[in-house]
Amino acid sequence: MINYPTKKKTNTSMNITTKSNQRGMGLEKDINDSNTFYRECNRALIYKKPTPVQVVRVDYPKRSSAKIVEGYYKTPSTTDYNGLYRGKYIDFEAKETKSKASFTFKNIHEHQIQHLEDVQKHGGIAFLIIRFTLYNETYLIDASHIIDAYKDQKQKSIRYEKVKECGCLICESFTPRLKYLDIVDNLYFKEDSYGF
Amino acid sequence: MINYPTKKKTNTSMNITTKSNQRGMGLEKDINDSNTFYRECNRALIYKKPTPVQVVRVDYPKRSSAKIVEGYYKTPSTTDYNGLYRGKYIDFEAKETKSKASFTFKNIHEHQIQHLEDVQKHGGIAFLIIRFTLYNETYLIDASHIIDAYKDQKQKSIRYEKVKECGCLICESFTPRLKYLDIVDNLYFKEDSYGF
Ligand SMILES: [Mg+2]
Ligand SMILES: [Mg+2]
Repeated sequence: MINYPTKKKTNTSMNITTKSNQRGMGLEKDINDSNTFYRECNRALIYKKPTPVQVVRVDYPKRSSAKIVEGYYKTPSTTDYNGLYRGKYIDFEAKETKSKASFTFKNIHEHQIQHLEDVQKHGGIAFLIIRFTLYNETYLIDASHIIDAYKDQKQKSIRYEKVKECGCLICESFTPRLKYLDIVDNLYFKEDSYGF
Repeated sequence: MINYPTKKKTNTSMNITTKSNQRGMGLEKDINDSNTFYRECNRALIYKKPTPVQVVRVDYPKRSSAKIVEGYYKTPSTTDYNGLYRGKYIDFEAKETKSKASFTFKNIHEHQIQHLEDVQKHGGIAFLIIRFTLYNETYLIDASHIIDAYKDQKQKSIRYEKVKECGCLICESFTPRLKYLDIVDNLYFKEDSYGF
């Protein structure tokens, strides 16, 4: 097969898209798998919220279920995940970045920040899970660090070093993929930490 | 306009569908409105989970956002609502019935029962909101009553009288439409009730 320049270019750009999608799905899949594991061993009850879809038109083909023929993804009003752990309400957003230097706030909606702040006000546990894909490192960071930085008009991002300093690196294993509840234990359930 | 018999029949059946849909949506809308009110006055942080959609095919029209052109409603893996109230995790399912005699368990999936049981095991608050539309009465009933009845192989439903006896009638008002958190206060936050 002859590699025409145009053909080659198309292939390359497709590969990039696929890779970036896989990367985009990578963290979500790791967390979903971890949550399934945590549920199966009765450690926690945490689910990904479904992506909201604005359904515009539905067909009802004979003898089969309703078929959505026009719909659009809506911006989620809250965060990716919530649930119940050790009797406490848990809520978090998961994000990946390809940057080596920082996690930019362009990646996060203002109402998501507001929601995380509300969770804390109502006595829940709120945090972010941020993966720096180029370092292959995933951090759990309490929402307050991100809320404070986000509200500081001069800041448009949080530096990698700051995430490393204020957050906790999540250990990875076969099951669960991301042992993030061990971090939650240390951060929120130590007698001298948050006073729960 | 002449009312041809066939035309009339179509109209009638459409009206019934519309009414039953409105009734189907009635409780959900009332709860959603109540939750919006409760959020706005900072009393609680409770949301309806989006209905999960299995997206099969997406088009990307030029210069506009992704358009779902083939999708199907999936069975939700959990319940309709969850959130945070007075520092506690809250989870519930809302159901309407047109029966005057009972609420049939056909209306509820086994994995929803399992989920409500798991919520209780993990220290959360789990209940159902059941509306008997023909009485125009809406009850909040702790999940344990439904779980017990559901697990009893001989029972295929829970009688209206039993719901009335074990549940609490929810008062209605202009805002919030359903004052269900007052019931939650009485049922779960009294010192001598659940030991929270
Ligand atoms: Mg996310
Ligand atoms: Mg329902």
